[in-house]
Amino acid sequence: MTELPKIHTHTVTLSAALCNAQMEISPAMLIQHIIETATEHADRLGVGFKRLSQGGNLWVLSRLAIEMTRYPRVLETFAIHTWIESFNRHFSQRNFEITVDGTPIGYARTIWVAIDMQTRRPADIGSLADIAPTVIEKECPILPPSKLRSLPEPTIVKDYTFQVSDIDFNRHVNSARYVELFLNQFDLQTFDENYLSRFDIVFQHEAHFGNQARVSSTPSGGGSLTSSINVDGRDVCLSRSTLTARSTKQ
Amino acid sequence: MTELPKIHTHTVTLSAALCNAQMEISPAMLIQHIIETATEHADRLGVGFKRLSQGGNLWVLSRLAIEMTRYPRVLETFAIHTWIESFNRHFSQRNFEITVDGTPIGYARTIWVAIDMQTRRPADIGSLADIAPTVIEKECPILPPSKLRSLPEPTIVKDYTFQVSDIDFNRHVNSARYVELFLNQFDLQTFDENYLSRFDIVFQHEAHFGNQARVSSTPSGGGSLTSSINVDGRDVCLSRSTLTARSTKQ
Repeated sequence: MTELPKIHTHTVTLSAALCNAQMEISPAMLIQHIIETATEHADRLGVGFKRLSQGGNLWVLSRLAIEMTRYPRVLETFAIHTWIESFNRHFSQRNFEITVDGTPIGYARTIWVAIDMQTRRPADIGSLADIAPTVIEKECPILPPSKLRSLPEPTIVKDYTFQVSDIDFNRHVNSARYVELFLNQFDLQTFDENYLSRFDIVFQHEAHFGNQARVSSTPSGGGSLTSSINVDGRDVCLSRSTLTARSTKQ
Repeated sequence: MTELPKIHTHTVTLSAALCNAQMEISPAMLIQHIIETATEHADRLGVGFKRLSQGGNLWVLSRLAIEMTRYPRVLETFAIHTWIESFNRHFSQRNFEITVDGTPIGYARTIWVAIDMQTRRPADIGSLADIAPTVIEKECPILPPSKLRSLPEPTIVKDYTFQVSDIDFNRHVNSARYVELFLNQFDLQTFDENYLSRFDIVFQHEAHFGNQARVSSTPSGGGSLTSSINVDGRDVCLSRSTLTARSTKQ
């Protein structure tokens, strides 16, 4: 048996067609690639979609935090390296380092839980313990994903109804789409002048096709904005976005 | 000098994280990969974003038609092969074959024009004639992109305001996002029971951040729906979606 890869690397060359208005990868697309990197590694470790679905379970992302000093730019090649920091019967903690030419430009931390496909309740993933030897100690110099709660007196409120294009293979709203909805609380000029230096997101409940959502945002100090997506009176997803001014010379 | 590659191939393995509710690649994401394949090939031929931007020009997609017999499914690897069918000073015609394990499952045809970054008017791309030797004859057994016009008496009308996440490196609305808005005229069950067997799209004008759009759709015979995205009283983009029932055993 070949040794299980403790670190998995996913490489992307950023063609112009993949760039946002700032000629960079958008935070939502970067997070989509982070999720994809995680699923690829899980597949290679034999604990991916295929194995979980055989047991009637699904991986879902519970929390994510990302910190970037800058974003990959047009025509750059960047790499996302992922490894498992810890693993128990309830959740798996997986970290990421984002590099360009071997130099780190950011890090992410994620927490994954498995849910039962039918009941949509947390599943016991103790049976996946054969990946325990792949857990490694590798530095991830950012704070864990924050606990978040929605704040009163929002200054930005937008309504949105979930559409076909928002729904993923789990038949609920795609994680990256929540990121887009949160960042759509800002305008284009804000991202011309600033970049998202830290982003925390907590997935609390599933949202589905046709659900009507309200996205509310409240300034929460230190240049950050705390936002919630509320469906039928409960917060399904929360985030905190921290922006930093782009230096005049990046 | 190494010979210019007449056919460029872009390969994707479809992890679960990249799938839609039907456990396939979504048509919009497939079209995004088609656009990316085109930009990669243009980059390799030395007529990509870099060279055009030096002359103050940009490639923009003018029309696309795609026909699929089925869509790549979860954990499948598919390839998009592209080649230039024709090229003149006004536009470039580029075709695509989509294969799984070497077997074609679909084709696409695209027409690209270059526009001046400042005036946003068509540019003369005669100076790129050094790619003429890369034009090849290879079968693309689907009809060219249709000419489309909006139809009266729409049966589905939705309003949408363009957000940060809809804007691409050209600072206008991303082509794939129009595809999503058009397919969002359908509901989830429609795609559970049918697949998009042919899709034609015509990009007529640019739309920008903050523009308020109205998406209107009218049944146009043969199981197809003709749709328009209208901003400030003019159609910026038109499409025709043709759905085919999924066989009971795919």
